[in-house]
Amino acid sequence: MMRIPTLVACGMLLGCAASPPPSAEPVKSVADLLDQSPAADWRRPDPENTLYMDLPAGRVVIELAPVHAPGNVANIKRLVRQKYFDGLSVYRVQDNFVAQWGDPDEKKDMGGAPKRLAPEFTRAAAGVEFVALPDRDAYAPETGFSQGFPAGRDAAAGRVWLTHCYGTLGVGRDNDEDSGNGAELYAVIGNAPRILDRNITVAGRVIRGVELLSSLPRGTENMGYYAKPEQRTPIRQVRMAADLPESERTALEILRTESPTFRAIVEGRRFRKDAWYKVPAGAVDVCALTVPVRSPK
Amino acid sequence: MMRIPTLVACGMLLGCAASPPPSAEPVKSVADLLDQSPAADWRRPDPENTLYMDLPAGRVVIELAPVHAPGNVANIKRLVRQKYFDGLSVYRVQDNFVAQWGDPDEKKDMGGAPKRLAPEFTRAAAGVEFVALPDRDAYAPETGFSQGFPAGRDAAAGRVWLTHCYGTLGVGRDNDEDSGNGAELYAVIGNAPRILDRNITVAGRVIRGVELLSSLPRGTENMGYYAKPEQRTPIRQVRMAADLPESERTALEILRTESPTFRAIVEGRRFRKDAWYKVPAGAVDVCALTVPVRSPK
Repeated sequence: MMRIPTLVACGMLLGCAASPPPSAEPVKSVADLLDQSPAADWRRPDPENTLYMDLPAGRVVIELAPVHAPGNVANIKRLVRQKYFDGLSVYRVQDNFVAQWGDPDEKKDMGGAPKRLAPEFTRAAAGVEFVALPDRDAYAPETGFSQGFPAGRDAAAGRVWLTHCYGTLGVGRDNDEDSGNGAELYAVIGNAPRILDRNITVAGRVIRGVELLSSLPRGTENMGYYAKPEQRTPIRQVRMAADLPESERTALEILRTESPTFRAIVEGRRFRKDAWYKVPAGAVDVCALTVPVRSPK
Repeated sequence: MMRIPTLVACGMLLGCAASPPPSAEPVKSVADLLDQSPAADWRRPDPENTLYMDLPAGRVVIELAPVHAPGNVANIKRLVRQKYFDGLSVYRVQDNFVAQWGDPDEKKDMGGAPKRLAPEFTRAAAGVEFVALPDRDAYAPETGFSQGFPAGRDAAAGRVWLTHCYGTLGVGRDNDEDSGNGAELYAVIGNAPRILDRNITVAGRVIRGVELLSSLPRGTENMGYYAKPEQRTPIRQVRMAADLPESERTALEILRTESPTFRAIVEGRRFRKDAWYKVPAGAVDVCALTVPVRSPK
């Protein structure tokens, strides 16, 4: 069984084994770095901003980003608490792009929640945490992480935004900037569609279970819509973690992007030192870095 | 049904409709550009370098890259013509990374085909077609397209290589540089793993049916291997297009990456002008450009 190495942080997988480094120098694998990381390098996502979408195949866990999209996150939470999403569906899966869910007919009662919201495509950079990467990027003057999410920044313009990477949660909209409201959401399941950055509100990131969306059958109609309603994937329920008893929550920890452990992982991606890699990349793309998530020990 | 726009070239989908542009200026959509493109802007992949992998769900069509990986492509073709892959399986599907196939036990008789091949991770740039993009890239001094495949180039070092983008076909190997031989292959099904560039032989690209690989259930073991052999996806047969009668071939046309139509599409991606986009990206990443493929009219 020949191999090409894993790129997902080992901590995201069960039974993660590291190959022994062949060099005399001790080389720390991602698995080693995570195993040896102090508890302080990890955070637990706030249950008030953690959303569970239960599909027939399992649970998709999403961390919301209230600092970057306060209005949209508030509306999403309002809709979740009205059980708006229960019984709706994932109705669009476009290969190498997005899975999208909500009410394809836009007829379900939103219970008074606003249908138009001020766009939150970018926000003022002042005062917002941003851990910058030094690497070149085609789309943004600077990339890095903000509040644990992959992000871009334009210091000259004083703006910061969350970037569209694998697993990014976005708020569907029509042509008008204020036509998104959180009733239709999508997650990125393909190569980072950075062209969407600054054009649509990013409201969070899938932190577990993205494979339940990315492995869904692709819709065969234009833009990945399903030809028949029965091909859609039903949503059993969507709940805020805070609204479920502890026994029904999914306990997770996320590596802090400002931690020494994360910095070491990023540097290890730039300059791989294990036996398999022959030429170091020398750089890293913000969307090629998946922030590790684990079940608490 | 709120929408975020399609990113896959419309020509790749059936029934592709373009939204009417709201501006007074005529703006050509990708669909319009493809519809109006002259026949000379398209090429038919060489049947001698086109491979069909037939899975239970349908056919995956792969264009091989003999200019970039002559030795590996020759060995892959030799194995295909020995029917080596028939009855083997897709045995590894790692989310946001790769689907990999071949013989997980490495026991099947390779019929005398070499098990070690000189690595073809990069090649001499001299004399090799390269259509450069002006955009910044984290990983390569220059990116662009070579022989119709996404590529990187280091002019100072005089080397060119095919980049790991969505759909890229690679040759699995062990730690030794010459340990790949084409008997185990992978296709990228997630965000471009550019860290692999120049570390492994790229032998081609999936030009149709990548969704048959990307929508497979993910393996739950480390690195995406399946826990049980029966979870693997069987390969019915792999054939060279040239070895099948016309009636069993999949007729396809690929847009030439050096054509005016492709240049217009790329420029349209940098500076979107339709009603949905509010802020142009201003740049494009080589792996965010999918070369259009269509069934002949």
